[in-house]
Amino acid sequence: VPAAVRAEAVRSVVNWLGCALGGARHATCDRALAAVSAYSTPHATVLGRAERLDPLKAAFLNGIAGHVLDFDDTHLQTIIHPAGPVLPALLALAEQQVVRGRDFLHAFILGVEVECRLGNALYPSHYERGWHITGTCGVFGAAAAAGKLLGLTEQQLVWALGLAASEAAGVKAQFGSMAKSFHVGRAAENGLLAALLARRDFTSSERAIEGRDGYLDAAASHPDAGQLVKNLGRSWEMSLNTYKPYACGVVIHPAIDGVLQLRREGLVADDVEQISVRAHPLVLRLTGQSSPATGLEGKFSVYHSAAVALVRGYAGPKEYTDEAVRDPRVVALRQRVRLRVEPAIHEDEAFVTVTTRTGRTLERHVRHAVGSRDQPMSNADLESKFRQLAGEVLPAAQAARVLEMAWNVEGLSDTAELARAAAAAK
Amino acid sequence: VPAAVRAEAVRSVVNWLGCALGGARHATCDRALAAVSAYSTPHATVLGRAERLDPLKAAFLNGIAGHVLDFDDTHLQTIIHPAGPVLPALLALAEQQVVRGRDFLHAFILGVEVECRLGNALYPSHYERGWHITGTCGVFGAAAAAGKLLGLTEQQLVWALGLAASEAAGVKAQFGSMAKSFHVGRAAENGLLAALLARRDFTSSERAIEGRDGYLDAAASHPDAGQLVKNLGRSWEMSLNTYKPYACGVVIHPAIDGVLQLRREGLVADDVEQISVRAHPLVLRLTGQSSPATGLEGKFSVYHSAAVALVRGYAGPKEYTDEAVRDPRVVALRQRVRLRVEPAIHEDEAFVTVTTRTGRTLERHVRHAVGSRDQPMSNADLESKFRQLAGEVLPAAQAARVLEMAWNVEGLSDTAELARAAAAAK
Repeated sequence: VPAAVRAEAVRSVVNWLGCALGGARHATCDRALAAVSAYSTPHATVLGRAERLDPLKAAFLNGIAGHVLDFDDTHLQTIIHPAGPVLPALLALAEQQVVRGRDFLHAFILGVEVECRLGNALYPSHYERGWHITGTCGVFGAAAAAGKLLGLTEQQLVWALGLAASEAAGVKAQFGSMAKSFHVGRAAENGLLAALLARRDFTSSERAIEGRDGYLDAAASHPDAGQLVKNLGRSWEMSLNTYKPYACGVVIHPAIDGVLQLRREGLVADDVEQISVRAHPLVLRLTGQSSPATGLEGKFSVYHSAAVALVRGYAGPKEYTDEAVRDPRVVALRQRVRLRVEPAIHEDEAFVTVTTRTGRTLERHVRHAVGSRDQPMSNADLESKFRQLAGEVLPAAQAARVLEMAWNVEGLSDTAELARAAAAAK
Repeated sequence: VPAAVRAEAVRSVVNWLGCALGGARHATCDRALAAVSAYSTPHATVLGRAERLDPLKAAFLNGIAGHVLDFDDTHLQTIIHPAGPVLPALLALAEQQVVRGRDFLHAFILGVEVECRLGNALYPSHYERGWHITGTCGVFGAAAAAGKLLGLTEQQLVWALGLAASEAAGVKAQFGSMAKSFHVGRAAENGLLAALLARRDFTSSERAIEGRDGYLDAAASHPDAGQLVKNLGRSWEMSLNTYKPYACGVVIHPAIDGVLQLRREGLVADDVEQISVRAHPLVLRLTGQSSPATGLEGKFSVYHSAAVALVRGYAGPKEYTDEAVRDPRVVALRQRVRLRVEPAIHEDEAFVTVTTRTGRTLERHVRHAVGSRDQPMSNADLESKFRQLAGEVLPAAQAARVLEMAWNVEGLSDTAELARAAAAAK
């Protein structure tokens, strides 16, 4: 695996770990934990918390935590969030057997490759039908990655991937509810389960993905199985990963960029008569929620996002709490946001036009959103994001130690150390 | 709930419990248990075995056991196997709280209603796309039934069903492998998980089934949401349940009937030049496996089924072992079986024509297979099936006690007794 791909994988680990810590105390995690903890054994760390769970349920919880803020990484071609299903499965395994950091990273890269290639084979008809592609494809990535660490034979890996084909689930109707991050948690848990079963020679069809009555045909109208192996080992999906500056659906990011640029030049909320956003059609499809009632719904509202960004100057986790979406200043402003979608506008592009009460017109054309492939988050950006997120649940010194270990993940002799270092004190 | 519906539900309990006991020691269960037992707490019975698991994993194991022989009940309109996903979830819950038999039966009927109505809404395009409808619809039934026993509020039940929409999975490519019964185990486990999460106010979309980007649209080309509530409370899907005399795909049953009738009249395998079966097109689609290598594959081979029925005079679990599909007499005869499908032939109908080496032609037209709605299994048939299956894993006296409790399930003051009575001694 080329050094640049490994380096991107390390950035993905840093970014995801911060998200999982920042999300660890979300009500979504509290409720999931309350439902499953009575039946679990204390084999694995729940990041950012003192509780321990069995590996399957730890993968579930950490999978939820990593995605609940909608702040994790994105494979823009498919809108898959790659790390979320894979890393929790690997971390849970790393506490059951000694896993060197380099093997951990290798398995992670492999898992992301499988997950995103499956996404490439299914996108776009799969996504258009209503499937939440991170939930569906994620389980294959988690199964492949966990299978690699478990040392499965080729036959067993085939079974693990076959079982994954019968676990893939999740629909987009859930966006805005706790069930969205549930998809990611379940993908991690289910992929791990598939690998654990395959290790015991639990069989599946050998053509459950590409065969007749297999997953590709069931879940997409025009699947392209060739994408699964095209340039395999030569091109790397991991190298296409991107990281979010804002804690909401990625399609809203260019609009937020435009609003924040105008704010930096002096625009204030009280001056606004109307904010007009012109953007890609997915912005309406995915984030057309005009009256969000909860923070989770706010993450899928371009109206709330544009408003809160102007009122508060940022669009991080605190701008997507239940409190933030009910803030009277934000509510008043979001009613002044208008959206028009145009197929010719790119997904990482937006035009923001503000008319003020005094009759002025301010305009911004965002060509490439911050965090996109053309305007990537730097390592320093990722560090500052990590500190902010981890600082919510861990003392600053502990957060700094975890950050250092994450940058150095490839050099760890036992990756369990990383998981344990990220647990909260009892 | 009308008495006749409750009576059919009791028959379904008797039939399913026998299947789960008969399947309890199948290699599929051994391997699943080996994969998950290390991380489980001993809260619930694994039927027919001495091991105990946490409620989620007990539901998983019992769900596999009940379906692995392909001998459980069938809702013919959708080819859903109704009891399999629902009863394991309920039995696991019944060991966590006191559940009266009448409440248990009520929840079971409710679960089957939800599961089969969802099937009615999705069938046939869902099934034709490749989805294994028991796996996909079963999770909704298990969630509804478990939610009922947990006393969920209306809002929580909506969430439980919504979470089920993000757990539904399983493809038909798996037929003939261990992953087929895995679907049923997972449906039971996942439905229970959905209900446990909803009890803790873990939210989902309130329109995850019928809304935009919801499950119906994602999983079928022509879903009919009206089927979900049509005549609700007036017609009962449970009353349409049927029970198998043979341990294989239900579409092969009429052909087996025909072969067994000819055998009773004196036909022997050595006399056969050719067996010609004319049947419904699904027989080829689902059971066209001409050279099965394992017992599980044999369950999806009309060729093996016709052959083994003539050689051994029955098509029960022992005729679908790895040994049976490799039996040289059966292998030789199955190569003499021919299949022709005709859309005009009903699913419970078949024409069997045998030409003998002496040039005779014998013919049988099976209008309605044994076990179909028009030729149902009697209570005595179900008893004898139960004794045969349970006798494989429990002493006869214990099996008889379990059978008596099952017939009397509605009168139990604590349904946990039924689960515990069906455990094997250590």
